[in-house]
Amino acid sequence: MMRMGWGDLGAFGEPSEETPNLDQMAAEGMLFPNFYTANPLCSPSRAALLTGRLPIRNGFYTTNAHARNAYTPQEIVGGIPDSELLLPELLKKAGYVNKIIGKWHLGHRPQFHPLKHGFDEWFGSPNCHFGPYNNKDFPNLPVYRDQEMIGRYYEDFKIDLKTGEANLTQIYLKEALDFINRQQASQQPFFLYWAIDATHAPVYASKDFLGTSQRGLYGDAVREIDDSIGKILKHLQKLGISKSTFVFFTSDNGAALISAPKQGGSNGPFLCGKQTTFEGGMREPAIAWWPGRIPAGQVNHQLGSVMDLFTTSLLLAGLHPPDDRQIDGIDLLPAVLQGKLIDRPIFYYRGNEMMAVRVGLYKAHYWTWSNSWEEYSKGIDFCPGQNISGVTTHTQEEHTLLPLLFHLGRDPGEKYPVRFASPEYEAVMKRISPIVDQHKATLVPGEPQLNICDRAVMNWAPPGCEKLGKCLKPPTSNPTKCFWPH
Amino acid sequence: MMRMGWGDLGAFGEPSEETPNLDQMAAEGMLFPNFYTANPLCSPSRAALLTGRLPIRNGFYTTNAHARNAYTPQEIVGGIPDSELLLPELLKKAGYVNKIIGKWHLGHRPQFHPLKHGFDEWFGSPNCHFGPYNNKDFPNLPVYRDQEMIGRYYEDFKIDLKTGEANLTQIYLKEALDFINRQQASQQPFFLYWAIDATHAPVYASKDFLGTSQRGLYGDAVREIDDSIGKILKHLQKLGISKSTFVFFTSDNGAALISAPKQGGSNGPFLCGKQTTFEGGMREPAIAWWPGRIPAGQVNHQLGSVMDLFTTSLLLAGLHPPDDRQIDGIDLLPAVLQGKLIDRPIFYYRGNEMMAVRVGLYKAHYWTWSNSWEEYSKGIDFCPGQNISGVTTHTQEEHTLLPLLFHLGRDPGEKYPVRFASPEYEAVMKRISPIVDQHKATLVPGEPQLNICDRAVMNWAPPGCEKLGKCLKPPTSNPTKCFWPH
Repeated sequence: MMRMGWGDLGAFGEPSEETPNLDQMAAEGMLFPNFYTANPLCSPSRAALLTGRLPIRNGFYTTNAHARNAYTPQEIVGGIPDSELLLPELLKKAGYVNKIIGKWHLGHRPQFHPLKHGFDEWFGSPNCHFGPYNNKDFPNLPVYRDQEMIGRYYEDFKIDLKTGEANLTQIYLKEALDFINRQQASQQPFFLYWAIDATHAPVYASKDFLGTSQRGLYGDAVREIDDSIGKILKHLQKLGISKSTFVFFTSDNGAALISAPKQGGSNGPFLCGKQTTFEGGMREPAIAWWPGRIPAGQVNHQLGSVMDLFTTSLLLAGLHPPDDRQIDGIDLLPAVLQGKLIDRPIFYYRGNEMMAVRVGLYKAHYWTWSNSWEEYSKGIDFCPGQNISGVTTHTQEEHTLLPLLFHLGRDPGEKYPVRFASPEYEAVMKRISPIVDQHKATLVPGEPQLNICDRAVMNWAPPGCEKLGKCLKPPTSNPTKCFWPH
Repeated sequence: MMRMGWGDLGAFGEPSEETPNLDQMAAEGMLFPNFYTANPLCSPSRAALLTGRLPIRNGFYTTNAHARNAYTPQEIVGGIPDSELLLPELLKKAGYVNKIIGKWHLGHRPQFHPLKHGFDEWFGSPNCHFGPYNNKDFPNLPVYRDQEMIGRYYEDFKIDLKTGEANLTQIYLKEALDFINRQQASQQPFFLYWAIDATHAPVYASKDFLGTSQRGLYGDAVREIDDSIGKILKHLQKLGISKSTFVFFTSDNGAALISAPKQGGSNGPFLCGKQTTFEGGMREPAIAWWPGRIPAGQVNHQLGSVMDLFTTSLLLAGLHPPDDRQIDGIDLLPAVLQGKLIDRPIFYYRGNEMMAVRVGLYKAHYWTWSNSWEEYSKGIDFCPGQNISGVTTHTQEEHTLLPLLFHLGRDPGEKYPVRFASPEYEAVMKRISPIVDQHKATLVPGEPQLNICDRAVMNWAPPGCEKLGKCLKPPTSNPTKCFWPH
């Protein structure tokens, strides 16, 4: 999983065509043009991927204000609740060895760490690689191996903000290949969650890739990731285990247009980007690869979600998803292996609000919001160059009585609402309304985990810091309600 | 050649992925993500394709007002000048038999017809299939076989505007297959210009394709064209002549967003559409196919133009382009066959004005204009949902002293001008300015052909009308300056 826009993939029309390995993966596998993440933001999407549940259920949202995006910065107190069952916890029961490489983002305090939630190994960081910090107001973010930190970004793991040079993707690649080697040698089934972050601002690439793209630094980072994925797939083939390995490529949210053009990607023909529930924020590139099982070169129109990877992976491992809780992910195997299209809705949430729903080719917006006038006036623009009157609104607009309806086939860019007075509108809303009513009537929101912030919980003294002499003194605790402006 | 947006191709990211035959053509051939038409409008682009020259040279422009798009509606007096040498005229010298199927658009008066300019056969219409008309204020447009009309649209060649049903693409396909059969049987080298028009508003598709697309009627039309192209390519293979046939697919202008969403296509990540010199108006889908000669599955970053097809086709036929006039098309063969990238500029003209130029990855705008406030206020919008301040201007804005510069690699959507004060701006403009200066200094504009309109020259009594009893009485001649609002 990575941060990448739908339109960044050559197979999805990026004009520089700089993803030959991902395009090849699609040619050998199955491309999903209608695949979604569970949230327009990283932490909740990753929590949804690993729990198979919407963030509103697993607690990765906030109630501090209406319809606000929230994530896990250093000052967040919460994280993934123990009551949630994560994919690796369940896979363990079938003998799988589980590793996460890269960004965790489900809580940085020790009780939330990957090894407390089913992973056997971890190499990477609990938060985004922001910085550098002065270790007084903010600590530099730690990098972990398993349960202990082995250094900090900008100190031990360099990122040159001027040139954009960093060697991290190469380290992540080596970690992946080593892990695969070890599992193959010991005949162990494994789950590898390769959660790289080179395309997240501040964007980085290693020396060999810097300046090689037609798209600037962001393109360099995409090229390095593409190259690494090609190497991982070839490695699986070399080891002779590609025919027993299900590989899935996707992203946790749309390209962050706010970082464009130098550090942001492309959402192709779609509206707006990260932070919004327009298609640019939540439609993702997605490729399934499994030579010999998944037919090559197929395009699958199934409406898919990152949460489906939870359910599908469990079934592939001979397990069943938990039946004591609502699971939102569906089994993709009938769609992937037998070409059966499953009729299911896609819900677009922003914090505690269901903003929109997609059913078939139609999408109904119950709320619209890009961001507030106040943030927008500071130059924060999630829809640069795009402005659809009444759609990309800068106030939270409620449409629950008369949802804004779009036909995403004729109008993938959400520019032309279907007319309220038309027979088409009436017929489609008759189909969508009961689905939404049922969803809302049966929804039991989880305890919100992203409400409280406290500077004292930042990464001052992570486990293992004492061995490195890298412990810092935390300030006194002062919990407050986090401020989520978007 | 057809009217289709860059983003309408599955291979270029249309999310419905409904062009399996064109995608297959790309997989077996070469995809050009940086290919351009010569004008954001149909007639001048087609004149440029067939002459290898910019419209400003071959006369397909107007001087009635500054920077205005002009074409060949029924009331136009002008057409392609006799002094221009067209591709089929030249190919004839090498023994080629030439046929055009579909829309001619280089002048509808008899002296301008295809058979007067090198074509041996013609099936189609001289103008767009607008209508139906009452044959009093406007005559219904004629359909020709060779030199004589054989009927009129809406009378003999039905287009049902309510359902969108018309059988024309199937007729055009049959014409193509028949022509190819005959040339193969007589061992005759041939040039087929398959200029279909189903995706031009009013959009149409035949019964078998109506309602089959996820994208509505426009998608139905695209699917039928895609299907037809697949059949033509398979036919070449079946006849055993695919290895001696160079096939090129492209479009004459970007998707007409003004007809969206029901009758307009997609320009993918690019800005605006038809009628504008932003990328959405002039960057085109383009695929070269020649099994055995052109390597399969390649992506070629050569900056290409429809005018290159003139030069390239002549060289393939063992001929040389005329040396008594300026030819703008270059030979694509080194790029196609040997992977050599040729450094050449792309000029973006609107009428008599060079609006922009692309050199390498950079594009400099010397003038910006979407359309006038007056037209815009009537609801005519060439950039629906898009608004880039200072770029998609509604007044003609001159930037000749300080061109607006974009890096199309980082920023394919032309949203973020390179800062004037930056070293990048200075270095790039040092490279671009001499190219523009030289182009302007050596330019000899042709006599403008699209200045005069007259209702008397409309298709009242085309050749052959008397045999069909379909001659209409023209009004008295009253030549006036054509009004070109865009």
